[in-house]
Amino acid sequence: MTFLGLDDLIIRALLEDVGHGDITTNNLVLPTARAEGSFYAKAVGVIAGLEIAERVFSYLEDDILFKAHKSDGERVLKGELIATVIASTRTLLTGERLALNFLQRLSGIATKTNNMAELIKDEKAIIVDTRKTTPGLRVLEKYAVRVGGANNHRFGLYDGVMVKDNHIKAAGGITNAVTTIRGKIPHTIKIEVEVENLAQLQEALAVKADIIMLDNMDVTTMAEAVKITKGRAILEASGGINEESILQIAKTGIDLISVGSITHSAVALDISFLLN
Amino acid sequence: MTFLGLDDLIIRALLEDVGHGDITTNNLVLPTARAEGSFYAKAVGVIAGLEIAERVFSYLEDDILFKAHKSDGERVLKGELIATVIASTRTLLTGERLALNFLQRLSGIATKTNNMAELIKDEKAIIVDTRKTTPGLRVLEKYAVRVGGANNHRFGLYDGVMVKDNHIKAAGGITNAVTTIRGKIPHTIKIEVEVENLAQLQEALAVKADIIMLDNMDVTTMAEAVKITKGRAILEASGGINEESILQIAKTGIDLISVGSITHSAVALDISFLLN
Amino acid sequence: MTFLGLDDLIIRALLEDVGHGDITTNNLVLPTARAEGSFYAKAVGVIAGLEIAERVFSYLEDDILFKAHKSDGERVLKGELIATVIASTRTLLTGERLALNFLQRLSGIATKTNNMAELIKDEKAIIVDTRKTTPGLRVLEKYAVRVGGANNHRFGLYDGVMVKDNHIKAAGGITNAVTTIRGKIPHTIKIEVEVENLAQLQEALAVKADIIMLDNMDVTTMAEAVKITKGRAILEASGGINEESILQIAKTGIDLISVGSITHSAVALDISFLLN
Amino acid sequence: MTFLGLDDLIIRALLEDVGHGDITTNNLVLPTARAEGSFYAKAVGVIAGLEIAERVFSYLEDDILFKAHKSDGERVLKGELIATVIASTRTLLTGERLALNFLQRLSGIATKTNNMAELIKDEKAIIVDTRKTTPGLRVLEKYAVRVGGANNHRFGLYDGVMVKDNHIKAAGGITNAVTTIRGKIPHTIKIEVEVENLAQLQEALAVKADIIMLDNMDVTTMAEAVKITKGRAILEASGGINEESILQIAKTGIDLISVGSITHSAVALDISFLLN
Amino acid sequence: MTFLGLDDLIIRALLEDVGHGDITTNNLVLPTARAEGSFYAKAVGVIAGLEIAERVFSYLEDDILFKAHKSDGERVLKGELIATVIASTRTLLTGERLALNFLQRLSGIATKTNNMAELIKDEKAIIVDTRKTTPGLRVLEKYAVRVGGANNHRFGLYDGVMVKDNHIKAAGGITNAVTTIRGKIPHTIKIEVEVENLAQLQEALAVKADIIMLDNMDVTTMAEAVKITKGRAILEASGGINEESILQIAKTGIDLISVGSITHSAVALDISFLLN
Amino acid sequence: MTFLGLDDLIIRALLEDVGHGDITTNNLVLPTARAEGSFYAKAVGVIAGLEIAERVFSYLEDDILFKAHKSDGERVLKGELIATVIASTRTLLTGERLALNFLQRLSGIATKTNNMAELIKDEKAIIVDTRKTTPGLRVLEKYAVRVGGANNHRFGLYDGVMVKDNHIKAAGGITNAVTTIRGKIPHTIKIEVEVENLAQLQEALAVKADIIMLDNMDVTTMAEAVKITKGRAILEASGGINEESILQIAKTGIDLISVGSITHSAVALDISFLLN
Repeated sequence: MTFLGLDDLIIRALLEDVGHGDITTNNLVLPTARAEGSFYAKAVGVIAGLEIAERVFSYLEDDILFKAHKSDGERVLKGELIATVIASTRTLLTGERLALNFLQRLSGIATKTNNMAELIKDEKAIIVDTRKTTPGLRVLEKYAVRVGGANNHRFGLYDGVMVKDNHIKAAGGITNAVTTIRGKIPHTIKIEVEVENLAQLQEALAVKADIIMLDNMDVTTMAEAVKITKGRAILEASGGINEESILQIAKTGIDLISVGSITHSAVALDISFLLN
Repeated sequence: MTFLGLDDLIIRALLEDVGHGDITTNNLVLPTARAEGSFYAKAVGVIAGLEIAERVFSYLEDDILFKAHKSDGERVLKGELIATVIASTRTLLTGERLALNFLQRLSGIATKTNNMAELIKDEKAIIVDTRKTTPGLRVLEKYAVRVGGANNHRFGLYDGVMVKDNHIKAAGGITNAVTTIRGKIPHTIKIEVEVENLAQLQEALAVKADIIMLDNMDVTTMAEAVKITKGRAILEASGGINEESILQIAKTGIDLISVGSITHSAVALDISFLLN
Repeated sequence: MTFLGLDDLIIRALLEDVGHGDITTNNLVLPTARAEGSFYAKAVGVIAGLEIAERVFSYLEDDILFKAHKSDGERVLKGELIATVIASTRTLLTGERLALNFLQRLSGIATKTNNMAELIKDEKAIIVDTRKTTPGLRVLEKYAVRVGGANNHRFGLYDGVMVKDNHIKAAGGITNAVTTIRGKIPHTIKIEVEVENLAQLQEALAVKADIIMLDNMDVTTMAEAVKITKGRAILEASGGINEESILQIAKTGIDLISVGSITHSAVALDISFLLN
Repeated sequence: MTFLGLDDLIIRALLEDVGHGDITTNNLVLPTARAEGSFYAKAVGVIAGLEIAERVFSYLEDDILFKAHKSDGERVLKGELIATVIASTRTLLTGERLALNFLQRLSGIATKTNNMAELIKDEKAIIVDTRKTTPGLRVLEKYAVRVGGANNHRFGLYDGVMVKDNHIKAAGGITNAVTTIRGKIPHTIKIEVEVENLAQLQEALAVKADIIMLDNMDVTTMAEAVKITKGRAILEASGGINEESILQIAKTGIDLISVGSITHSAVALDISFLLN
Repeated sequence: MTFLGLDDLIIRALLEDVGHGDITTNNLVLPTARAEGSFYAKAVGVIAGLEIAERVFSYLEDDILFKAHKSDGERVLKGELIATVIASTRTLLTGERLALNFLQRLSGIATKTNNMAELIKDEKAIIVDTRKTTPGLRVLEKYAVRVGGANNHRFGLYDGVMVKDNHIKAAGGITNAVTTIRGKIPHTIKIEVEVENLAQLQEALAVKADIIMLDNMDVTTMAEAVKITKGRAILEASGGINEESILQIAKTGIDLISVGSITHSAVALDISFLLN
Repeated sequence: MTFLGLDDLIIRALLEDVGHGDITTNNLVLPTARAEGSFYAKAVGVIAGLEIAERVFSYLEDDILFKAHKSDGERVLKGELIATVIASTRTLLTGERLALNFLQRLSGIATKTNNMAELIKDEKAIIVDTRKTTPGLRVLEKYAVRVGGANNHRFGLYDGVMVKDNHIKAAGGITNAVTTIRGKIPHTIKIEVEVENLAQLQEALAVKADIIMLDNMDVTTMAEAVKITKGRAILEASGGINEESILQIAKTGIDLISVGSITHSAVALDISFLLN
């Protein structure tokens, strides 16, 4: 899942952790000593970020041998071997924490995403993520979301239009807002409007918004919105949706369900790294 | 809690979210429009990161007015006003998500930390954090830990020595490891040794390790370790400690309890931002 | 037209030109000397980039006074005063060339764009730009295009989908390509397909491509394509379109005309900077 | 023509175009697919920048095979093969636009330069460039000028002295200016003075300026200046010189003719990239 | 002695020296010409920085062959061969000055350090460095200190506590200062207190400072301080110590002697680079 | 002596010293405490770098008050007050070391330079520096050289031509070398040739080298060279020149004397910083 900024992200993270040097390892372990280390799952979950973990080590040393026993998106059981890496002992000891920090966080997101996606797997609705990601890690976290079985919403404020309440006020109504912005943005980008009630929905449909977000609507109103819309726009449910509420929301016939917690409140998947 | 790298961190995070521009806001809101926005708590918790939130907006515009109604470390109730900011409407709409992403994550860490610290507030033991932080955000996350009422462990591999199992093997035993490293590191830095049983503890004490980490020991053994040590070294408990186990660990008389989950598994504190 | 990367762009450009110092000015002009300089048009054209020019000087010195006598998008005649700037003489002499290099290039693009837009001002078609921009200056050049009276196409490979011949081959046909990609990209982004003949057009329409680019089609076929499409997709004409051919292309009823030459072959607008 | 900042320039340009990823290619083309692409000239011109084009692809992938069929400085005819590149299909599709943007712009400069140089090939005068280059691309554009058959003037304000009208005023005359600066700059750098008439020329000669720029002089005066100078200084003609005027200027016996339009108003050479 | 920031340091230093290109070498030496160059000692000293010198060349060209005939820490005589490097002639000529600048400065520090260390080699005291290093080169200079046979003090303000006079005033006395800071810093870091007389020493000992710096004390008082301390804290002598005074200071029984001049006033070791 | 890269240099140096924070000061001194500090000379010398020292503090805090009691280039006596700065106590304590590190090094260079310049103040020869500067600090160190009363040689490989022995070999003789390079470099740059004997001098004069460096020539030969040259080229003496040899070299009538030791072997001027 390489992207152009990945090297820069890894070197910054390494500098944060290693600084002017790993004073324990450099003073106790010979540069020539080599070893093998293994990543093991310590809990059930979905793996994401193996390539990032590999890159952490390969940034520290050219000649590492990384072997993945699982692949991104695969579900692991407690105790299963995930990957092994052969490198100088120094590289393993200096790099393991950062490799784990990436792997555990991304796998945590993939796991939570996958768990929610499983709950609605028989419905047509699909889960999408939000901009509620960790500053600096968005591309990686959105990758973990895809690995977990959900889709990505826009990546930032630059590649999607979302007309919210305050934009509507500033523009003098939904109709004005959509009309105005349609002539100014690249024609390759759709227009999404956030609505809070069915009257706003009707106005958004009339002005041909491409996507309509139903913000914090109750399930009954949401179902009504689906009926009114009749496929004329993509409908997205949003607002505090969790494992308890997602299935009934999906059953309204909605197209998309955006869930912030899959990124902002995922907990690390427990993974260990042991020298063999 | 300003640190020298903060500006760089914020500009990178802004670029990640805003890219070549907020195409919704820039096309709908006049540059001259001004507004006031407010941060509200939507759950009980401890606030951390107000200065970072302010900086996000002030990076986008020189003339903002940020007023904190709570301060970092203060506990908030659901519905309470945290802070208000007056700025151009563009600045508020473009910056709110990043300000929230920082504030919610840091407050989530402070809250989880504080909740655990409360559990052992009558014991002498104090909680310390680990290197299990989000890549790129360590200084901020360790700040949130302090705000929540715990202490910091070393910041990275450069400002503390932690002699682990693999270092011990490489050096041929605890005694050799500690003796070797003592002559090579700056004299300003203490030596911490990780031990797994009481025999190793005795060896670490004999060679005058400054700090000894009891790795995944059961409570009974840990209590025995405290007795054996008699204050000759700082004792740190470590290994999967959580809200359920922390009190009985503290009651062993241990000095420090390091807890990875306060950073790697804190969930975002629910906070909203509304334009008035 | 400030964007987040602008400061970085300007400092890099200044370093390129000034390096370790303006050895002529620094050795001949006192730091305390102040002067006023003026930008004059030496040819007819449309101005773009005044804010960038101002920023060049203000990067060199805090206390400059920049007064624009024209605004971006305004047409100037030969000899007209565009802007004046009061600053230390050193700032003026060191910064003038870079300010001009930006202003002349962006105004050149705005002028060429505007001239082409004028040719089809009575048709419904609008001009859009391409990715054929100067490496490093895309955001600025796309701004100049808007100033000149045309619209922007996607900003890069990340914020729009363009399914070209080679993608179609790789995916096994237009239908497969569009179907596949629809499930993988953010739902906020439209799908554009490049077609070379009417059969491909029909296939793209059948699979509900949002935008269809007619690549190097003759005018007659293009007109036929418009009739076939009947508004079911946005139609974009592309391929070597210039001042001679644009009007008859617009008259086919096409929606968009993408023109690479407004960026890759615009010549600098002649502008001078004189100390008063 | 590698220079130390080239990698940085290319990665920035790639990030500008690719951002968080080529969402069309990555979702339609397998990472294992490989292909061959070819650059063809679509107009007559002089090629410059082949190494830059190669670097764009090799930045995206280690194992590319780039074969140049023409070399920088070679004149191509319409339809001629310029170079081929074998790489993963993803690399070719993601990198082609940036490779072309560099190659077309640099070849455009080389072509325009070469065309002007041909006009005066029987005279002793040679063309030199100016600082009127695209911000950020100066080293590359000055390389293209050399490829096209002209010479470089100073690279920036740091490696050459040019005493202009305003410097002369600040210093109280040409004599003072030249005398002052001679004692302050590195002795490795020559002093060039800009003069507007023959009296100034005499003064500049008297104070032993190394180079004298005749600014916007008519041809007759310029010829007179050549006679007066008798080789005591290098004479450079400057000011709006174009294809129409260059030959008669050269015939005055001048040494150098500086031409801004070879960089600021060169248009892209038409080049295509096709997958075989 | 590789550290993570070394590549960045070298590329910045190369850019500083080479800029847009080595205009002498590039215009006179063919890219295909290869040669061998040798580093020779022109004075007696201790070598440090061979790996940095190698890296300078290898940054300019992948295929260099660097052979060290001495190793870091080894003492060389005048005229001895230190290392040879085979590379393109261009690489050798462009890189030699920077390689020498690093090698001479680091060897100068190692030499001065080693000379002082030799003076007290029969005493238990060891020399430590200070923060009086060249801005930007601290990690390298502290490496040279170790190579020369001394130890490092803290690397910066972040990895060691030094309570000085002004801190003591701000905190209201040594006792308050040490007590306060003990609860706030990572438990992995020791506390050093600077004292000016024996009363302060007693206070620092009472509050169990880990390290006590005797600031500018005369030798008699210092000896008294050693007796009082009886090993309860590490004692460090500091203040203008030089080759004349160091032995009698060591003979007081002090543990550490910090010497700023080994970094801030080391002179370059004379080394030449010759093409064979 | 501000130059464009100065801010970047200072922030990097601050990060090197301060890292994630000054853990002593931040934990003992209130952010609101303010104080005044003073720089005093502890030895006789020439001051250079006051503006850099000021910048270090002003980077840490906006509202500092810096008052220089001496100016760059002024000679100070032991004990004299150099400058005072009023700021928050935190700023003073955190910034003082870096401010001193810059000020002491630059003043050390200015002092050594000035001492040598004084030795030949009655001769026409002037001292110039070399490229033997500290990596990363060249612009500052060359500034200190000017402050000390000498001139700068070229700043790097990009702004001056120096044809050395190996270039001569590669080009097949001095004549070929100079002729070749004259047609390729910007006409604003002079050509310097290094010669080792009078035969080479004659060849360099014949081909009209602008500057000729007499490399390691004895004084008698050098005097002969001056006679032969008769002002037809600038003559530069070079090679291990020191305080003992400089006057007799100057007396040969040479124009320039380049001295590496004024940068590579200057020792820090002793300066202290005290809080009042």
